[in-house]
Amino acid sequence: MKHFLNTQDWTRAELDSVLRDAAYYKEHKFGDALKGKGVALVFFNSSLRTRTSFELGTFQLGGHAVVLQPGKDAWPIEFDLGTVMDGEAEEHIAEVARVLSRYVDLIGVRAFPKFIDWSIDRQDRVLNGFAKHSTVPVINMETITHPCQELAHALALQEHFGTEDLRGKKYVLTWTYHPKALNTAVANSALTIATRMGMDVTLLCPTEDYILDERYMDWAKQNVVENGGSLAVSHDITSAYRDADVVYAKSWGALPYFGNWEKEKPIRDQYKHFIVDEEKMGLTNNGVFSHCLPLRRNVKATDGVMDSPNCIAIDEAENRLHVQKAVMAVLARQND
Amino acid sequence: MKHFLNTQDWTRAELDSVLRDAAYYKEHKFGDALKGKGVALVFFNSSLRTRTSFELGTFQLGGHAVVLQPGKDAWPIEFDLGTVMDGEAEEHIAEVARVLSRYVDLIGVRAFPKFIDWSIDRQDRVLNGFAKHSTVPVINMETITHPCQELAHALALQEHFGTEDLRGKKYVLTWTYHPKALNTAVANSALTIATRMGMDVTLLCPTEDYILDERYMDWAKQNVVENGGSLAVSHDITSAYRDADVVYAKSWGALPYFGNWEKEKPIRDQYKHFIVDEEKMGLTNNGVFSHCLPLRRNVKATDGVMDSPNCIAIDEAENRLHVQKAVMAVLARQND
Amino acid sequence: MKHFLNTQDWTRAELDSVLRDAAYYKEHKFGDALKGKGVALVFFNSSLRTRTSFELGTFQLGGHAVVLQPGKDAWPIEFDLGTVMDGEAEEHIAEVARVLSRYVDLIGVRAFPKFIDWSIDRQDRVLNGFAKHSTVPVINMETITHPCQELAHALALQEHFGTEDLRGKKYVLTWTYHPKALNTAVANSALTIATRMGMDVTLLCPTEDYILDERYMDWAKQNVVENGGSLAVSHDITSAYRDADVVYAKSWGALPYFGNWEKEKPIRDQYKHFIVDEEKMGLTNNGVFSHCLPLRRNVKATDGVMDSPNCIAIDEAENRLHVQKAVMAVLARQND
Repeated sequence: MKHFLNTQDWTRAELDSVLRDAAYYKEHKFGDALKGKGVALVFFNSSLRTRTSFELGTFQLGGHAVVLQPGKDAWPIEFDLGTVMDGEAEEHIAEVARVLSRYVDLIGVRAFPKFIDWSIDRQDRVLNGFAKHSTVPVINMETITHPCQELAHALALQEHFGTEDLRGKKYVLTWTYHPKALNTAVANSALTIATRMGMDVTLLCPTEDYILDERYMDWAKQNVVENGGSLAVSHDITSAYRDADVVYAKSWGALPYFGNWEKEKPIRDQYKHFIVDEEKMGLTNNGVFSHCLPLRRNVKATDGVMDSPNCIAIDEAENRLHVQKAVMAVLARQND
Repeated sequence: MKHFLNTQDWTRAELDSVLRDAAYYKEHKFGDALKGKGVALVFFNSSLRTRTSFELGTFQLGGHAVVLQPGKDAWPIEFDLGTVMDGEAEEHIAEVARVLSRYVDLIGVRAFPKFIDWSIDRQDRVLNGFAKHSTVPVINMETITHPCQELAHALALQEHFGTEDLRGKKYVLTWTYHPKALNTAVANSALTIATRMGMDVTLLCPTEDYILDERYMDWAKQNVVENGGSLAVSHDITSAYRDADVVYAKSWGALPYFGNWEKEKPIRDQYKHFIVDEEKMGLTNNGVFSHCLPLRRNVKATDGVMDSPNCIAIDEAENRLHVQKAVMAVLARQND
Repeated sequence: MKHFLNTQDWTRAELDSVLRDAAYYKEHKFGDALKGKGVALVFFNSSLRTRTSFELGTFQLGGHAVVLQPGKDAWPIEFDLGTVMDGEAEEHIAEVARVLSRYVDLIGVRAFPKFIDWSIDRQDRVLNGFAKHSTVPVINMETITHPCQELAHALALQEHFGTEDLRGKKYVLTWTYHPKALNTAVANSALTIATRMGMDVTLLCPTEDYILDERYMDWAKQNVVENGGSLAVSHDITSAYRDADVVYAKSWGALPYFGNWEKEKPIRDQYKHFIVDEEKMGLTNNGVFSHCLPLRRNVKATDGVMDSPNCIAIDEAENRLHVQKAVMAVLARQND
């Protein structure tokens, strides 16, 4: 049984097919791929776009989504096997996933890192626990990666450039300042999908401390080998932006300071000039700008960039609906 | 594009038409005015009646409502333009409204005052921010006014009196005691709709401090000019109740003490006798009693009044469902 | 008008019929028993299984469930009549129930004890308040009993044994250790339904302090008189397990210490050996094991018991969906 945990688990042909299905759903809103089916959306962290798009996408395909928020309801779950559960956890993931699997046909899971110990968070235990014990397909609604955002982003780029083939485009993933240390999920995902699509990718970040986890750097390198394009890391803003076709912005916390964010704070505070502004965008090849949202205006990107016709962040957000319908339809088809 | 932010923005003919549609829906539960459509219900404050009636009304017309609770999920939103968002706000209303508009066909917004500074709260910034940036119609689910309650109230009166024409009725909006200083929204709305329907309206309150914001007093005066009837302010319980056809009760905080509620407390505590009781109702012309609910029994109104056949508060609450379906249907029709 | 507050309020023939309907729904997922109908699910306490199964069950029968969480939204309700509501409560159950009854066709209520004073909690005031004031049928979604769990449990046993007739089976309801003092609801319910089905029931618990409230002990005795079988209380693990056909586990707080849980703690800590393990299950007649979930593994039951083919806890959880659809269908039929 196939889950949708990471795009890297799916073949390029499968992803291309999903993107085409999504483009179809964008033109044809309704379908019966989930007719009568139930979807559990399990949010350990809160959500606006993800929740709305999954819930409505399910409805538009004939199903019904149940939104569960264990994080709100203080429902601590055990993920290890063999534990004597005399601590906080009231239930084991084995039971949670098995019971939900009896009620629903698909399970979506959002579970951000705990931001204390990256060596633990990088195991993605909640998502993998559901995938292991569930008997229905599991969808990653953002954990330490965000594959639904990847597909929405890729579709928005295909729409903008008017072609499915994104090879030859210069793609810049730029770190930006944010007052808090944020999840690397969307950065990991942007690096993954941009290299998967065969683009010439530059990871622009202040210092080596902001380079992403080696798992995702390795995926990117592997993608370059298999799909063409290139991968570079840069700390120089001007050369990174010059002639770029795509600028994708995201803030994230530096992994070497993971859990020690007060030590990272004075470092990150030196790099507020990584903001995406009109001057930097002026260096690009009339480049398109996007961001996964939410975005702090005039911190990550200026009003001028956000309100320019080259900003496709709203289109990308809309595409979440379409790609998720396509993913759910593919996954649900397995069981029929 | 028409929103439903206040009844005052709509013509009397439009409101009359909506009330007739609502009466129709009361007899004919189902329809396809929202078939396949999505509705976002954005609650910055919690809700029982509003949430249930909007969610089920959407379902009965073939759509699906997504309930979003930013207040619960600590999702602080920026409403000003040009701000450097380095404070608490993680997202700008421009993005929130635009993205939601891509997913749904209607957006309902509940956003109560912050109760600190009336000069800010009276701008109704959350509601107006959504209306400004959304590309789909926006519905006021109670902010500093409560237009859905107005329509439900008007329909209940029309039902009770057996006529669409409420002119000539003596209408008393009475302030009542409540241990906390409450929102003026329903009071503003009652004054607005009662004068709009051409009734002879008395605003009964303890002192001049409890007179409503001049915006709503001005609306009421304008309504009298355009629709007939009259408007009076009274601090005398007996004369106000005498021969009344309608008594509508609501508690609210005195605007001169807005945000300084501890200073208002000893003042309001002197007026517990404004409670609606059988004795006062005995002065009326076999008057009908109503309230928007929730209501503290034996504080705002006695058990005897609440349980009397002349109490139509439950009918009014039921009508929320019918009028909101009518409003949603009208708004959704614009886009087709 | 019939509610579903306790199985004891329904005749054995009615319960048997519901169980047969549930078995039918297990084979035939969809129906129109709730077509166009609304269901309010009022959760004063959080929920995974109950919420998902009721919400999806309603959908599968053509209706729509609205999930309300007063406990989360701090919506304090008054249940007594005649009270001057100048305390915390903002609304009286009379209005809450009457208004909801105007919007929906069924109301489900989850309201756990407050765990301070059993003489109050045992009145089940929230559930009974809804039942008293509602004009539509009310369903107990777990208060001080859990009748939906009873039916799911009974159906799972019928499936396991391949017969509707459970008479002659030796049934052990065993107390187990849990670090916290838990609700007696499922224990009360297990005792009720096991005796109702005419089984030979043993209540196994550490001491007399753990015997259940006399109301449920009396129901059990009455059930033995009417349905055959037997009832015994035992504090001896070995003899209780010997030759058992069914072992049902649950932890609960001792009623004599209700609200004084710190005094009960050293007592309960002596009985951790009540855990259901392979050795104890080895004494049974190849007995089946179940639990209502959530369950702390290796505290209430070992991994070996939970993962054995004789564990039917997941089947029982699944059956919640089927029996609740059957109950809702029966209740909704009354109004047609």
